[in-house]
Amino acid sequence: MARKLVVKRGRKAGSEPGTLIHLGTPRAEQPAIRVIEYDQHEISDRLIETAGDYRVSKGKHVAWLNVDGVHQVEVVEAVGQAFNLHPLVMEDILSVDQRPKVEDYDGYLYLVLRILRYDEATREVQSEQLSLILGDHFVLSLQELPSDLFDGVRSRLEDGRQIRSMPADYLAYALLDAVVDHYFLTLEALGDEIEALEDELIDRPEPATLKRIHHYKREMLMFRKAVWPLREVLSRLSRDESPLISAETQVFLRDVYDHTIHVMDTIDTLRELLVGMLDLYLSSVSNRMNEVMKVLTIIATVFMPLTFIAGVYGMNFEFMPELGWRWGYPAVLLLMLGVSAALLFTFRRRGWI
Amino acid sequence: MARKLVVKRGRKAGSEPGTLIHLGTPRAEQPAIRVIEYDQHEISDRLIETAGDYRVSKGKHVAWLNVDGVHQVEVVEAVGQAFNLHPLVMEDILSVDQRPKVEDYDGYLYLVLRILRYDEATREVQSEQLSLILGDHFVLSLQELPSDLFDGVRSRLEDGRQIRSMPADYLAYALLDAVVDHYFLTLEALGDEIEALEDELIDRPEPATLKRIHHYKREMLMFRKAVWPLREVLSRLSRDESPLISAETQVFLRDVYDHTIHVMDTIDTLRELLVGMLDLYLSSVSNRMNEVMKVLTIIATVFMPLTFIAGVYGMNFEFMPELGWRWGYPAVLLLMLGVSAALLFTFRRRGWI
Amino acid sequence: MARKLVVKRGRKAGSEPGTLIHLGTPRAEQPAIRVIEYDQHEISDRLIETAGDYRVSKGKHVAWLNVDGVHQVEVVEAVGQAFNLHPLVMEDILSVDQRPKVEDYDGYLYLVLRILRYDEATREVQSEQLSLILGDHFVLSLQELPSDLFDGVRSRLEDGRQIRSMPADYLAYALLDAVVDHYFLTLEALGDEIEALEDELIDRPEPATLKRIHHYKREMLMFRKAVWPLREVLSRLSRDESPLISAETQVFLRDVYDHTIHVMDTIDTLRELLVGMLDLYLSSVSNRMNEVMKVLTIIATVFMPLTFIAGVYGMNFEFMPELGWRWGYPAVLLLMLGVSAALLFTFRRRGWI
Amino acid sequence: MARKLVVKRGRKAGSEPGTLIHLGTPRAEQPAIRVIEYDQHEISDRLIETAGDYRVSKGKHVAWLNVDGVHQVEVVEAVGQAFNLHPLVMEDILSVDQRPKVEDYDGYLYLVLRILRYDEATREVQSEQLSLILGDHFVLSLQELPSDLFDGVRSRLEDGRQIRSMPADYLAYALLDAVVDHYFLTLEALGDEIEALEDELIDRPEPATLKRIHHYKREMLMFRKAVWPLREVLSRLSRDESPLISAETQVFLRDVYDHTIHVMDTIDTLRELLVGMLDLYLSSVSNRMNEVMKVLTIIATVFMPLTFIAGVYGMNFEFMPELGWRWGYPAVLLLMLGVSAALLFTFRRRGWI
Amino acid sequence: MARKLVVKRGRKAGSEPGTLIHLGTPRAEQPAIRVIEYDQHEISDRLIETAGDYRVSKGKHVAWLNVDGVHQVEVVEAVGQAFNLHPLVMEDILSVDQRPKVEDYDGYLYLVLRILRYDEATREVQSEQLSLILGDHFVLSLQELPSDLFDGVRSRLEDGRQIRSMPADYLAYALLDAVVDHYFLTLEALGDEIEALEDELIDRPEPATLKRIHHYKREMLMFRKAVWPLREVLSRLSRDESPLISAETQVFLRDVYDHTIHVMDTIDTLRELLVGMLDLYLSSVSNRMNEVMKVLTIIATVFMPLTFIAGVYGMNFEFMPELGWRWGYPAVLLLMLGVSAALLFTFRRRGWI
Repeated sequence: MARKLVVKRGRKAGSEPGTLIHLGTPRAEQPAIRVIEYDQHEISDRLIETAGDYRVSKGKHVAWLNVDGVHQVEVVEAVGQAFNLHPLVMEDILSVDQRPKVEDYDGYLYLVLRILRYDEATREVQSEQLSLILGDHFVLSLQELPSDLFDGVRSRLEDGRQIRSMPADYLAYALLDAVVDHYFLTLEALGDEIEALEDELIDRPEPATLKRIHHYKREMLMFRKAVWPLREVLSRLSRDESPLISAETQVFLRDVYDHTIHVMDTIDTLRELLVGMLDLYLSSVSNRMNEVMKVLTIIATVFMPLTFIAGVYGMNFEFMPELGWRWGYPAVLLLMLGVSAALLFTFRRRGWI
Repeated sequence: MARKLVVKRGRKAGSEPGTLIHLGTPRAEQPAIRVIEYDQHEISDRLIETAGDYRVSKGKHVAWLNVDGVHQVEVVEAVGQAFNLHPLVMEDILSVDQRPKVEDYDGYLYLVLRILRYDEATREVQSEQLSLILGDHFVLSLQELPSDLFDGVRSRLEDGRQIRSMPADYLAYALLDAVVDHYFLTLEALGDEIEALEDELIDRPEPATLKRIHHYKREMLMFRKAVWPLREVLSRLSRDESPLISAETQVFLRDVYDHTIHVMDTIDTLRELLVGMLDLYLSSVSNRMNEVMKVLTIIATVFMPLTFIAGVYGMNFEFMPELGWRWGYPAVLLLMLGVSAALLFTFRRRGWI
Repeated sequence: MARKLVVKRGRKAGSEPGTLIHLGTPRAEQPAIRVIEYDQHEISDRLIETAGDYRVSKGKHVAWLNVDGVHQVEVVEAVGQAFNLHPLVMEDILSVDQRPKVEDYDGYLYLVLRILRYDEATREVQSEQLSLILGDHFVLSLQELPSDLFDGVRSRLEDGRQIRSMPADYLAYALLDAVVDHYFLTLEALGDEIEALEDELIDRPEPATLKRIHHYKREMLMFRKAVWPLREVLSRLSRDESPLISAETQVFLRDVYDHTIHVMDTIDTLRELLVGMLDLYLSSVSNRMNEVMKVLTIIATVFMPLTFIAGVYGMNFEFMPELGWRWGYPAVLLLMLGVSAALLFTFRRRGWI
Repeated sequence: MARKLVVKRGRKAGSEPGTLIHLGTPRAEQPAIRVIEYDQHEISDRLIETAGDYRVSKGKHVAWLNVDGVHQVEVVEAVGQAFNLHPLVMEDILSVDQRPKVEDYDGYLYLVLRILRYDEATREVQSEQLSLILGDHFVLSLQELPSDLFDGVRSRLEDGRQIRSMPADYLAYALLDAVVDHYFLTLEALGDEIEALEDELIDRPEPATLKRIHHYKREMLMFRKAVWPLREVLSRLSRDESPLISAETQVFLRDVYDHTIHVMDTIDTLRELLVGMLDLYLSSVSNRMNEVMKVLTIIATVFMPLTFIAGVYGMNFEFMPELGWRWGYPAVLLLMLGVSAALLFTFRRRGWI
Repeated sequence: MARKLVVKRGRKAGSEPGTLIHLGTPRAEQPAIRVIEYDQHEISDRLIETAGDYRVSKGKHVAWLNVDGVHQVEVVEAVGQAFNLHPLVMEDILSVDQRPKVEDYDGYLYLVLRILRYDEATREVQSEQLSLILGDHFVLSLQELPSDLFDGVRSRLEDGRQIRSMPADYLAYALLDAVVDHYFLTLEALGDEIEALEDELIDRPEPATLKRIHHYKREMLMFRKAVWPLREVLSRLSRDESPLISAETQVFLRDVYDHTIHVMDTIDTLRELLVGMLDLYLSSVSNRMNEVMKVLTIIATVFMPLTFIAGVYGMNFEFMPELGWRWGYPAVLLLMLGVSAALLFTFRRRGWI
């Protein structure tokens, strides 16, 4: 289990607020900046080199600037300057272990979300930070890694006129919705494996099962930690009066909020299921120990008296009249048979066999 | 355990909100649409082919349109168009794993409920989605499967004049009440089996008992998940001021709310009982292991010294004077008797026998 | 354990709200209706046959109508008609598994309480429903079974002038107070048995102890379920502004509220105690198993090597020089003694003996 | 464990509210009534026989009347009449098992506190009721037993001018503060013993340790029950606007409130520590059982094959060629040595030895 | 485990509020008092001997007075007099076991924080009290021990002009931020060790692992206790309207609040992880016990029947025809082989081998 539950923030401790240091895994590629601008009639889609090149074209256009990779401080800094962001916002974009939150700044909203992916190979949930900034006519989205998460939104922008006729807040909603919908995919993968593990547990529990239960409990713990604060974020967005979010979009945000509650519900259900599975596993172990003990006890109880009888007639006393009897040997064999029969009968009556 | 705790929503991820895709089990039959219209004086009851055929006859009539089966997207779409429903509502009707909720749209209320049935054969709780839409003069109800759940309401509509003199919100209440009343039937079936299992557990605990406890915990988990959000829904309905719900009906909704609290209470009681049963089971296992161990220890403690004594006199030393004694054999037998008696006496004093 | 945690409501499911069906255990006797009317100067006390005979004598009189037994639907119906009760109230009076609640109707308050009795024979808590209706000048009380619970109130009405000078809400308070005071008696009986069981557990734990712990946990679960909602009921009564309850009586209701909190506190303490007792029991079982295992191990460890040595000299090889030695036998006996001494010394050093 | 978690209230059930019956342990001594009156300039301190003798000397004086012992109903009754207390207050003073609470009566506040003492001999927490009544110019304090708890307050009254210049509410605060400060002493004694027990547990766990853990859990349960409601009491006192409490004193009450929170925190920490200790104990027991089982298994596994081999060559067949071999005996001894060596090597590889 | 969970307050019990007694570990050094005064243009930094020497230079200056060591009552008293602090504040500064809190006094805010350090040698979290007093133009900080915690803030004051242009509340924020940032360092150290322990546990669980789990649970308990109340403190500071805190600084305090929530989250995650580890450990112990029992049972079950057979043919009866047979011995050996083979086959079928 290589992933850390406690993300290193230490290297920042003591520095000035607003100091821009990237806290995630360092990477080499140049972050891609993609700008999509549209109105109801037309749409443009291009890559730019640095955010400094971008000029906010105010007017009826909605601009969506997406940055894949926040590991280069300069890139984020340029974005911040181009859109006049608060130093704390830039700091948070770079500190990629933030909890989901929404903050109301002058002229824009700053949202932090966690993108969760399930890595089938390592059976681990990968958590990535997505920063969303919603302004009057623009949306900024900054992810840690390139991904196809927003491909659906992009193709809807290209195809459909409907989404292009909506203001920027609707675009922000569409991105939020894509992230939350992705949670269902991740949960589904996890849920399938957990339910498969449950079947396995009922059929043939093994010590390795236990470690896997522990592993999934850990993953669910992490999942929960990433989704839980999102509830409050969406609840606030769909209720508060912000000039940046229209009442029409709030209806849609309420829908995303419902989905988030649904995700939380499912997480809690899976967690309770895992706890139940642990109980079941421990009980199975006890049960099997009981079985083993019974076998041992039956064997010992049957053979110890028999061995003792054989031992008695193996003694070398000179005066043991039975030894000279003609039917002594068969009689002892019969006695042994009788003793075992009596013992086995007792066991059966007690329900041990 | 074939049923999934995590319902597949994956195939929808990334699609546009309001996209109409049915997320439940696909089925073949043509969904039946039944329209009942009534006022205090007369009542009509007919089946129509598609909702497009239906014309809202405004006026003093109350119309109740019931759809059995939401697996055909066209059918739901036609209903949506006929009653001018929001795209998100139609999407939710088709996504049959919604949590119970109430949403206030312009001109109508949208309610999601879960119908819970107990399948005696598989010992599983089947959960089905019921969508209710309450408008000014109409009620729409959309279920996944045909059922006799609303037969009581239908016969009251046919017989009694009282219910026919009430507005549409009272009909919605009557349907809600039928759903919640059905929870009691389901809980009763579950409760009976759980209490029978408890008796069985106290009389003769078996490994299979454990698996059944786990099974019922899982079912109660699912039951709780389906009923819990309904509390809030009913609390809101019976308190909020909505022009669609009269103060008179709110008194009745308060009653359904009470019933829901009662259901939750009983669920929690059964869950605590199951936890107690698990403890009891584990303790029984420990107790029986203790019994087995005692038997083993008594047998071993009695026969090991005896076998040892017999072993000593089975040695082949030339100079063992006891072997030549006339009463050596009986003396050794007496010694063995004495040793066993002493050991058994000790066990009795310790309370082991 | 014959009593059911889930009360059967099934036979009502689907029927019209306000349908009057008795849901408790059917009984044969004719319910007694007792009417006490009083003002500061005089008091009358009589039995009437049906509530239809009763005429509300408005004025300065306070009337208390008590019905012992709600198993005859007609009797309750007559009461309902005489006092003009809402159909849902009559339905609730007959559905004798209600949770405690208070409902504000036009002209009267409807309260549901649970009377709890401890049956020493079966060691079970019996729960019975008491419906109280407080009107402007009357109090109705409907119990399932005749009892002496209100004898104290009756004799105070006969003797003391003080209580007779108070309005109807004070009488309702006095009845509430009698019910809650009775909880202490019931809890006391339960608490005594639980603390006796605790002493027994510490002195000599037995498998039966475990079943009794489980039994009391079940009873406390039920007790809690019956008292918990009463808190809210009394909190509301002692705070809300209802024209039916005077500020003077609210001071007294606050006192009953305090008692209820006290009851809840004690229930929770007893429940935590029972959980602690279960832990203690399980640990005792483990401890004793440890003891048994130690005895077995000591016996086996001492006698197995000895028996082995005896076995060696019981072999029939022709060339075993020790067998011919003059002191071979005593030497082997000494060897055996030495081995046992060494083993026992080791055990003592490990603290096993 | 002689002390009862459920205090007997039964003998009061059914009696009129305000009926004065003492519910604590009956005692023989005459309760002492001590009156201290002071203003900034002078102070008087005297014992009076009955509260009836006391005349409230209104004016600038603050009067503090302290009663040690509430087991004589007449004494409390006289106090009640002298200060015109509500019957429910007098009843509560005598029912010495009240939860901490504050009640607002006309002209005075009534507070119930619990004094907690740790009895080192029985290792039990003794709980005693303190009733405080704060009027405009007087404070009444009624304890169950004489104690030196308020000696500090008395000497400050005698020495310092500062406290004498403050109104009656400051005196009440000083008494409250003395009670809460005493909790720290009691907790310290308990905490020391629990931490000593923890060390003992880690060094050498014994069955008696388990019973002591259970004992301390019980005491902490009781401690918590006595302190928990005090939080609300002090929170209300330091926030509400009561004419009896000045804003200046509220600053001090906020301080006592902080201390109470601190006490609760420490109680919860100790409780969690005890739960952790129980887990640790149970694990130790399992660990030791494992050790015992290993010893048994090693012994049995080594000696059973050896004894079997010896048994084979102890058989009396006529045709057993090995028996006649010259080196048969040493060869068999070597074989036995080899078998044991192989087995012990296996154990070591498995990490059992 | 030498550190006490219950800090001794006993020696203060009963003394007057505001009595100045130091409750921490006594120390010998003279506490250092360092005064930093600055405005946008200049900064002075000097050590003074006693706070009495300090004159508040009102005006545009911000003064930061830091005291390292509160073990000398006189020093704190002089500070209190110089800045006119409430007696309760001075008392709290000296009682170094306070919970985090904020109190609003006339003209200044009083904050208590806990500085937490992880001592790698003893593997313990050291908790130290920091008192912050925020006035209009000054900040007082009083720690128990000298430390480099605020070195970052000092160097920023010296270097940067930005921080020097902000009012005193921003300085207080910077100190708060340094304390909370330090929590991450401490948590990181703990988290690393806990995750290392988890790996160790999965690879090779040992009894010592258990004690370390218990140890870390204890440390996390203490950590939580120190951070939990800080949430409320920061929430209040970032929301309430206090003339001492500007809206601009509140944005920064909201950021510290987020960090605190993040710390709490991580603590809870680690605590849940520890609970999971305990479960895993206990299950491993059970699993290994099972393995041991199986070995024992297999050995006993195989060798007991064999030894019995050998015993039978070791009997000394005169008439045992088998003993005289030519192939008797090989036949018996074959029989023994057959019995063992049959038993081992059975074990394999049961999955024991």
